[in-house]
Amino acid sequence: MVTSTTPKKRDSEATRKRVLSAARIEFSKLGLSGARTESIATRSNSNKRMIYEHFGSKDGLFEAVIQAAWEDIRAAELKLNLQDMEPMEAMRTLVRFTWKYYLKNPHFVTLVNSENLHRAIHLKKIKAKVGEMQAHMVAMVAGIIDRGVASGAFRPGIDPLQVVITIAAINFYYFSNRHTGSVVYNVDLMSDEALENRIAFNVLTIEGILRA
Amino acid sequence: MVTSTTPKKRDSEATRKRVLSAARIEFSKLGLSGARTESIATRSNSNKRMIYEHFGSKDGLFEAVIQAAWEDIRAAELKLNLQDMEPMEAMRTLVRFTWKYYLKNPHFVTLVNSENLHRAIHLKKIKAKVGEMQAHMVAMVAGIIDRGVASGAFRPGIDPLQVVITIAAINFYYFSNRHTGSVVYNVDLMSDEALENRIAFNVLTIEGILRA
Repeated sequence: MVTSTTPKKRDSEATRKRVLSAARIEFSKLGLSGARTESIATRSNSNKRMIYEHFGSKDGLFEAVIQAAWEDIRAAELKLNLQDMEPMEAMRTLVRFTWKYYLKNPHFVTLVNSENLHRAIHLKKIKAKVGEMQAHMVAMVAGIIDRGVASGAFRPGIDPLQVVITIAAINFYYFSNRHTGSVVYNVDLMSDEALENRIAFNVLTIEGILRA
Repeated sequence: MVTSTTPKKRDSEATRKRVLSAARIEFSKLGLSGARTESIATRSNSNKRMIYEHFGSKDGLFEAVIQAAWEDIRAAELKLNLQDMEPMEAMRTLVRFTWKYYLKNPHFVTLVNSENLHRAIHLKKIKAKVGEMQAHMVAMVAGIIDRGVASGAFRPGIDPLQVVITIAAINFYYFSNRHTGSVVYNVDLMSDEALENRIAFNVLTIEGILRA
């Protein structure tokens, strides 16, 4: 087979992926400060020298992990093909997707919380890249809103950025604050019934914002 | 003056308050793990012995700080006298209050995030007390919703707990994720204009949920 990727490059790429995956687990469990490069090396069957060669530092590794996480959720959104759906159904689908993504990828929620604790210093370094992905996402929602307004299903004058922030908020907060919430409301917020109630309500919330 | 409080008791109460206030600052800045009892002693013009006497341990102190924070926001809500307002105005007032409280008391957001990192182990110990406050708050919102449904202004079948969680979510998330949000959306989420846009949108969101 003719390929432009040399075996050495492929090995290197495989190591990089293994390290990223191990780092994601370590950072999600222990945060940036608590995570140890040595543990990540052991988990990924590599060594500290290789990690520093690929990523420069523990902060460089965290930066790569958070960039990969951002790319993953944004890429998954694109596969929803929201542009082919009726506008309200497209928005419902996006809300349900976001909910499910956070539910199935709790490390995403933990990484974003960690990054806010560190005042987004890692995201700032990859600002151009994540900014472009995010702008694309807001533009996609703006497109759905425009179609909804044109068809008369949505009210005019809705700010797509606020909608995007709100979809994140109503889903993210629920998971991020599940421990305190379960105690103060005296209910298991992660039970099947509670989860079903919440996602149904979140869909209604977004419908209420958009409906003409 | 005849009083049931001895001077010694009053001194002790004053010390307790000073320590709590210093601890709130230290925990908000450095989290539970990063905070040092010695720094709190210095800040509060007390000493470690007095702190342990009053609160037992650093965890005991954190527990007292988070309880005081919870009591403060719930007490402030009661002063809004929402029961005397027209239902939709009562809900708008609650949303604006919550927003302003988080904005003016960033330590509340940080403490709650910290407590979620620690899986709510401190809140669990004061479960009865915070549970009662929170149940009272949900009952208050349930009362407003009932009045709104009775008057025909609100749609029937709204779950008060979901409304309470959503009011927290759309406000809390914005502040809690302001660092990552400002980078990925390439906008200063804390500018006066951005803040005004957000609270206006949050009011519309809750109206959309409730409106008949």
